[in-house]
Amino acid sequence: MNEAPTDRTRVRRVATNARYDATTLHAIIDDAYLCHIAFSDGKGAHCIPTACWRDGDHLYIHGSNGSRMLKRLVEGECCVTITHLDGLVLARSAFSHSMNYRSAMVYGRFEVVEGDAARHAMETFMEKLVPGRQADVRPGSDKEYAATTVMRIPLAEAACKMRTGAPNDDEEDLGWPAWAGVLPFARVAQAPVRHEDCTIEAPPYVQRWRQP
Amino acid sequence: MNEAPTDRTRVRRVATNARYDATTLHAIIDDAYLCHIAFSDGKGAHCIPTACWRDGDHLYIHGSNGSRMLKRLVEGECCVTITHLDGLVLARSAFSHSMNYRSAMVYGRFEVVEGDAARHAMETFMEKLVPGRQADVRPGSDKEYAATTVMRIPLAEAACKMRTGAPNDDEEDLGWPAWAGVLPFARVAQAPVRHEDCTIEAPPYVQRWRQP
Repeated sequence: MNEAPTDRTRVRRVATNARYDATTLHAIIDDAYLCHIAFSDGKGAHCIPTACWRDGDHLYIHGSNGSRMLKRLVEGECCVTITHLDGLVLARSAFSHSMNYRSAMVYGRFEVVEGDAARHAMETFMEKLVPGRQADVRPGSDKEYAATTVMRIPLAEAACKMRTGAPNDDEEDLGWPAWAGVLPFARVAQAPVRHEDCTIEAPPYVQRWRQP
Repeated sequence: MNEAPTDRTRVRRVATNARYDATTLHAIIDDAYLCHIAFSDGKGAHCIPTACWRDGDHLYIHGSNGSRMLKRLVEGECCVTITHLDGLVLARSAFSHSMNYRSAMVYGRFEVVEGDAARHAMETFMEKLVPGRQADVRPGSDKEYAATTVMRIPLAEAACKMRTGAPNDDEEDLGWPAWAGVLPFARVAQAPVRHEDCTIEAPPYVQRWRQP
């Protein structure tokens, strides 16, 4: 599929950078730990960052039952966006400078996930955060689950936009004597920091956090 | 100042993580290359990523004159959010897991920056992206400036929220036999990638991009 699912997901600016396939969408979400959610209420539009994860064709979030955002999200539609910045693109011309990035936008309405499905979702979240961690921790109690709301939004109405690779100078700028290329970024794991009261040896999922 | 400037910027959940001072706000913005902007129109709320930079007490963005978002932003209020993810926080209890992060939210309305001020803003943007680059590039033409809209929003109505440091388990979970601590992330510069047609030696700002 490389057509927008709906009018509001159709990328208009630099439309050649648009992607509408599930593989691209899933890869962008799976590389993220958080998303930004836009929604409106009587005080205007809000843009709130929150942790997210994917299971199948849904994006999940969670929060305290008292969260204002979670209450608003079941009442109306919203837009969930994830963006990864991959590099600065240095062209010969100032106005041809750009950034390499991967972004995904999802429109729709969240629904509350209840009961066993909520427990399964929270365990999936832990497995995504740190594979292998779930078996070690003190599991959530009934009281903790009761105080937490898990929600999901279908990935049906979504669009991705990405830019990769070298700068694109206009023909007449190619001779301009400036270095041209990409200054890339990566999100890199740093050395784990053990809690000062912890005397337990680092398990494999902590040891492999920072690959040298 | 550690009081929220307005009701809608007052952090309610884990309010001890809120910061309302300019030093914190400026540091979070200055460490970012992009923000997410939430605004509403007849098609609902949208959450759009875009490049941003700070000059004094304003946050700046730019885009093509034809951009739908830029047109909407001068017509009404919006919410601009920047989030940095700094690490995963592994507690003994599943529900005490958290993330370390720094986020900033700015509410208000953008105004268009015109003429010499727009040129100055775009040069400030380049200086922020890659200090020293401006002197090397083919400068923007009158036509390029005419096709570009530069906008700014005051940083007057803003709030930051951040979490740093170790996990906070409840007293009764401290004896649970799970490793506890932080798995940190950092955005790290990677080796520059020269454009295949470029024969110019890397200038100092490219050479120092990736510190070993």
